[in-house]
Order: sequence, then structure tokens, then C-alpha cells
Amino acid sequence: MNSEKIILGIDPGTTIMGFGLIKVVKKKMQFIQLNELILTKYDDHYLKLKLIFERTVELIDTHKPDEIAIEAPFFGKNVQSMLKLGRAQGVAMAAGLSRQVPITEYSPKKIKMAITGNGNASKEQVAKMLQSLLELKELPKNLDSTDGLAAAVCHFYNGDKIQAGKSYTGWSAFVKQNEGRIKK
Amino acid sequence: MNSEKIILGIDPGTTIMGFGLIKVVKKKMQFIQLNELILTKYDDHYLKLKLIFERTVELIDTHKPDEIAIEAPFFGKNVQSMLKLGRAQGVAMAAGLSRQVPITEYSPKKIKMAITGNGNASKEQVAKMLQSLLELKELPKNLDSTDGLAAAVCHFYNGDKIQAGKSYTGWSAFVKQNEGRIKK
Repeated sequence: MNSEKIILGIDPGTTIMGFGLIKVVKKKMQFIQLNELILTKYDDHYLKLKLIFERTVELIDTHKPDEIAIEAPFFGKNVQSMLKLGRAQGVAMAAGLSRQVPITEYSPKKIKMAITGNGNASKEQVAKMLQSLLELKELPKNLDSTDGLAAAVCHFYNGDKIQAGKSYTGWSAFVKQNEGRIKK
Repeated sequence: MNSEKIILGIDPGTTIMGFGLIKVVKKKMQFIQLNELILTKYDDHYLKLKLIFERTVELIDTHKPDEIAIEAPFFGKNVQSMLKLGRAQGVAMAAGLSRQVPITEYSPKKIKMAITGNGNASKEQVAKMLQSLLELKELPKNLDSTDGLAAAVCHFYNGDKIQAGKSYTGWSAFVKQNEGRIKK
């Protein structure tokens, strides 16, 4: 087992994609980066998807994360918005799949729970906790952009469970366990 | 304008991905291929997405299509199934985006209408019409796999409208028209 690893956290949406990177050294987190990709200025749906895909690939190629954590809501207002959200998640996941980086997804509730101990915590509470945990000098104006970082931190806290094997549902583990079943 | 082009049609789903390829020479269609990727045997959601992504990339790299047409339902039973469908569409679209191939999506109704003249045509009617139009010797047992080919044929019929510009919503056209607005 590698004692050092980099986790990329992403919250892919169709209006904003928040992302954050942390490094885990000897079971301690170090902050690397926190940023956002604003998509509201683009009308074209494919262009948004293209930008999400390209930025995620760029983040992977630049920072070489060992694992990717995605904030993935499972519920939404209507089927239309869920289809769009699914597409945004799909292109971000494709970026990870294209670079062979294992992906784990977490619900917003699970992420809030992991960071604050309260699954119904506010965005402000999560952001304050992230600031404290990672010793951030300041928080971004738009707190939506902290959601990606929050996913990365949640993944760090779930790391032991994942290494234990049972809760891990990434395809790479599956591929290793089921090589005979995979047709190309 | 190129007088010859190849169109890849895809119907990305989480149980089966149907795909088909046609060549357009002097405004006439020629059949190239019709096939399916069966995903029911895999339980792992990421593995399914990975297989959809990889197969689509492989199809693009092998056949070098000029355009991609996707069958994209906009309505579904529930938000859960729409999220999954959106992800399947997203990874297929990411494959096109990663290879710079313009994508156009069509609703199932529009595809049926373009091929049979009836937006409520049955799968059998669409398949029979495809067989006649493309002079197919036989139809596959599983008619679901003809949906990708149907999307390609629908795209062929909509080709003139697309070249006229207005109905074309692909990102590549957008990029050309809005170069100043695109930040990377």
C-alpha cells in the first residue's frame, strides 16, 4: 500500500464544477488546490460537457491523482435536470475512466456527515470545517466551489473502509476480480 | 462541403448500447455496420460506463466518422433511471468530444418519424424500414441494437437542415462562432 496519495474531488454540475485536490501523507491531509469551472456563461450544452471533460482530464494529467471522489446527488427535482446532471457526471467520470483512475461517488448527505458529523449541515458549516481541517487562509466567495474539495476530504475519511474492500465499487477493483468476465 | 461522409449512430443505455455506421456518398446511404454492446452481464455501474466509453472511442478511431448521432430520450420513469441514462449518454458523448467529432442528438420520436413517417411506429416497423432502406440481408434478433443505426439514418435525413445552420447545436459550430467566449 502506498503511504502517499493524491485525491481529486469533483462536484460536476451544469452551472458550476467545483474541484479540489488533497495529498495524503502518513494518513494526514495536505491541501493542494481548490477551484471552480463556471459554466453559466455558456448556453450550449455540449460545450459545457466538453469543458467539464477537458478540465477533468487536464487536472488528472497535471496532478496525477491516485483516486477520484465525485459528489453525486441521487435525487433531483425532475427527470430533465437529472438527465443533464447525469451527463455532467458521465463526462467527468469518462475523464477518470480514460486515465484509469478509480472513481468513488458520495451523496451530498454522506459528504456533509463525513466532514461535520451532520448530514444536514449547511454549506457554510461544511466550508468552515474544511477551512479548519486543511488550514485554508481564506474561503472562496462562491461556496459551491468547495463541494469538490469536500468530496475529496470525505473520500479520505472513508479510505480505510475502501481499503478493507467491501464498500469499494470502482471498476478497477471489479476488473481485477473478474478478468474472465470482461469482453472488449 | 464534403460529398462523402461517415455517420456513427449510437443508442447508449445501461443494459445495451446499439450502434450503427453508414457512409453517405453523393447523398445516398451505404450500410457499413450494425452491432450492439450487451451490458446486462455486468453489475458494476462504472464498468458499464467504461465499456460504453471505450467502445465508442474504438468505433471512432476505427471508422473515423465525420458526425455522431445519438438517440437521447428526454423522458423516463423516474429520476434514478434518468440519472443512469444521463451518465451513459455522457460517457458516449465524452468519447465524441475527446475526438472532436460533432454530436447531434435526436429523441426516439423524431427518429421514428424520420424513418417511417410515424413518430409512434413500433420497433419492428422501424427495423423493417431500415432493412429496406439499407438493403440489409437480415435483421438482428434483438431489435434494440437497430436503434443506433436508426439514429444515424435519421441524422442523414436531417443533414440538409443541419448544414443550413439553424438547427445545429453541436459544440464545434459553437466554438467557431464564439471563440472569444471560450476560456480553457
